[in-house]
Amino acid sequence: MRMVDLIARKRDGGELTTGEINDFIRGYTAEDIPDYQAAALLMAIYLRGMTRRETVDLTLAMAHSGDTLDLHDVAPCIVDKHSSGGVGDKTSLAVLPLVAAVGVPVGKMSGRGLGSSGGTLDKMESFDGWSSALSLEQFKRQLREIGLVLAGQTSVLAPADGKLYALRDVTATVDNRSLIAASIMSKKLAAGADAIVLDVKTGSGAFMPTVEAAEDLARLMVEIGQDAGRRVVALISDMNQPLGHAVGNALEVREAIDTLRGGGPEDFWDHCRVVAGHMVLLAGKAGSLEEAEALITAARADGRGLAKFRELVVAQGGDGRQVDDPDRLPQARYIEPIEATRSGYVTAMDTSELGWVCVHCGGGRLVKTDEVNPAVGFLLTIKIGDYIEAGQPVGEIYADDDMTLQQAQRDIPAAITVAAEPSPPRPLFYATIYGRERH
Amino acid sequence: MRMVDLIARKRDGGELTTGEINDFIRGYTAEDIPDYQAAALLMAIYLRGMTRRETVDLTLAMAHSGDTLDLHDVAPCIVDKHSSGGVGDKTSLAVLPLVAAVGVPVGKMSGRGLGSSGGTLDKMESFDGWSSALSLEQFKRQLREIGLVLAGQTSVLAPADGKLYALRDVTATVDNRSLIAASIMSKKLAAGADAIVLDVKTGSGAFMPTVEAAEDLARLMVEIGQDAGRRVVALISDMNQPLGHAVGNALEVREAIDTLRGGGPEDFWDHCRVVAGHMVLLAGKAGSLEEAEALITAARADGRGLAKFRELVVAQGGDGRQVDDPDRLPQARYIEPIEATRSGYVTAMDTSELGWVCVHCGGGRLVKTDEVNPAVGFLLTIKIGDYIEAGQPVGEIYADDDMTLQQAQRDIPAAITVAAEPSPPRPLFYATIYGRERH
Repeated sequence: MRMVDLIARKRDGGELTTGEINDFIRGYTAEDIPDYQAAALLMAIYLRGMTRRETVDLTLAMAHSGDTLDLHDVAPCIVDKHSSGGVGDKTSLAVLPLVAAVGVPVGKMSGRGLGSSGGTLDKMESFDGWSSALSLEQFKRQLREIGLVLAGQTSVLAPADGKLYALRDVTATVDNRSLIAASIMSKKLAAGADAIVLDVKTGSGAFMPTVEAAEDLARLMVEIGQDAGRRVVALISDMNQPLGHAVGNALEVREAIDTLRGGGPEDFWDHCRVVAGHMVLLAGKAGSLEEAEALITAARADGRGLAKFRELVVAQGGDGRQVDDPDRLPQARYIEPIEATRSGYVTAMDTSELGWVCVHCGGGRLVKTDEVNPAVGFLLTIKIGDYIEAGQPVGEIYADDDMTLQQAQRDIPAAITVAAEPSPPRPLFYATIYGRERH
Repeated sequence: MRMVDLIARKRDGGELTTGEINDFIRGYTAEDIPDYQAAALLMAIYLRGMTRRETVDLTLAMAHSGDTLDLHDVAPCIVDKHSSGGVGDKTSLAVLPLVAAVGVPVGKMSGRGLGSSGGTLDKMESFDGWSSALSLEQFKRQLREIGLVLAGQTSVLAPADGKLYALRDVTATVDNRSLIAASIMSKKLAAGADAIVLDVKTGSGAFMPTVEAAEDLARLMVEIGQDAGRRVVALISDMNQPLGHAVGNALEVREAIDTLRGGGPEDFWDHCRVVAGHMVLLAGKAGSLEEAEALITAARADGRGLAKFRELVVAQGGDGRQVDDPDRLPQARYIEPIEATRSGYVTAMDTSELGWVCVHCGGGRLVKTDEVNPAVGFLLTIKIGDYIEAGQPVGEIYADDDMTLQQAQRDIPAAITVAAEPSPPRPLFYATIYGRERH
């Protein structure tokens, strides 16, 4: 294969063979193919697209570009979940302990936040001493012992994805359905998941702006997973407003703990119950989604979920007392109310902008090397469809300095659209996408 | 400017500003912008295109990416020519001395051959000792003293073009009208030409497959030249068969010498006379093309063209006796006839394939670092429209080893289409493209 011929074929709208895609990924991972040829190919793929077969081939090639994890000596069926990222999305923090508490082992690799979306690892690092840096042996031991482990993504698994993602990031080739699907699914396949629940978000705070675009991506990922012999379900969920109330790392941890204790915002719990239910169903621990959700609800009600979460914190070096008493979590210096500036019905939120408010307070990253301040962020207690009065408190800002506090006090109300006529509340989910055979 | 935003805009079909194009070329030349970002942008340009304004801006930015030559202390008007490359295209060898002999100074930078097209420098290096490596001082002195100089392209002029061309070559982004035009014209502008004759070839041995594509490229280059304040004319010429008879470096030199002596193939002389005539006309040395061509014809008839060619050879270290006696040029070991395999009318030639035959004999380059054998190649004495008999000699192969000889004996007849019905002879020129005002 001459790489330049391969680029030319895709440039002209042609199809690459399985062998060519394998050669490209192998050569690029081994650094035999330079970044500039990969960049030209990525742009050609971006503009010309890939067929489903090409996308599956690319995903499998990326999944096999390094080690692959086999956890079957630990558990017969490994269930994973993936969220496409959103504002206030602390779902994993509640869902994973509940699923593990029901007896479905969860060994998950997670990412960090970048831009307006947070990352599960950043949230967990609100606990003093908690670490996601685990060896494969530690990972397996913890999975065997407590049935729940949460590690950072390792460059040993699907290294081609890490290299390609970094290149896409600087060559304006991120936002392509096939490349997004291949990136997400290659990591999941390499990490050894037998069953995967995909939470694909759509709306003003999501990567996929429309339900149709989200469904399209979700369907492709479900198909890739099936072609690779895995059980996959995708949920299309709403991200036109933050999930729950809390945005910011320690604030989200506290909200997850509240939820595991039986409290917390209703929308967040509903979302968690459905995601966790699908994981339990895919793992074969229940005969129907209703039954699976009932198991999850029971594990929340009797405190098994919270206990499992505390085990997770402690097993990875965190301070369990911060679970028992969330006031021990990092505290912001300033806590100030957010006040509505206009009276009327909340009809829309610029959710991405709300995510950026938290980043600008120090709670997220503009670039990968930024430090994250766990204490800062905000609570926003209103939802689309609510009626609010000007001057009414609609939440609280948690900031460590006066400047970001004042900026957030201006920016948060500005991101909320208020109108005289109400708009209907947003649904939590728009669709569930199953594979060719329903499980 | 964030480079990734610039790539994204072009990716989405948007237009880049003059400032952005300047920043890109400046940053890429200075190696502040990495190859992979340039590669992504080139592919986006390839697939989305550039407006005329963007193309002019790109050309000017590339032309000014390094030094620019000002030869006005040597001559009031510098005339240059450019050929888009073809098989048997030894035009410069005859045209430049004739134009210089008429009193129009020619200081030209030329390239080397790659693939099926030959290069002027490779042909000139058939002369023992001849060198194109001249300092700027040597270049100017020779131009002043004999009115004719032929140097290699220097990386000091339009360095962005050299860098971008190398990148396009390995990223499948060569074949784009705007990028081709910018590459050609940036070098001409940087080299200080006031007037430029573009010889844009079309047909089976040319980069531009159709007359329309060639005209399109030619018109763009004429417009760029005009926007940059230069006088430019483009000729659309035929490359559906080799120009003249000779293909191969020393063979082409000999044919150019024959032509300057008053002999040589008729089509080649007709082609040279028109190209040289336009150069003389653009330089203001004649009032009409007819008058300009008459001056050229006279300079050939009285031997001034040949004498000027000899001066060029000697001034740059070559052996003048090889001009006087072309038998002294490098000789191939084997000279064997090419025989027609079928009777009938010659209706077409795969001219690119004929060019490759010479490359495979050792007379050209597969990769840039290949050494070129000046002695090898072939003479093909038939033209489209001729009637030939099976077994009739139609030319001669010049080879240095038996294997390439035998291969060429098979490949050359195979590249010639013979039919029962004649097709009309090919014209030499299809069109002449002038700027907005005719000169």
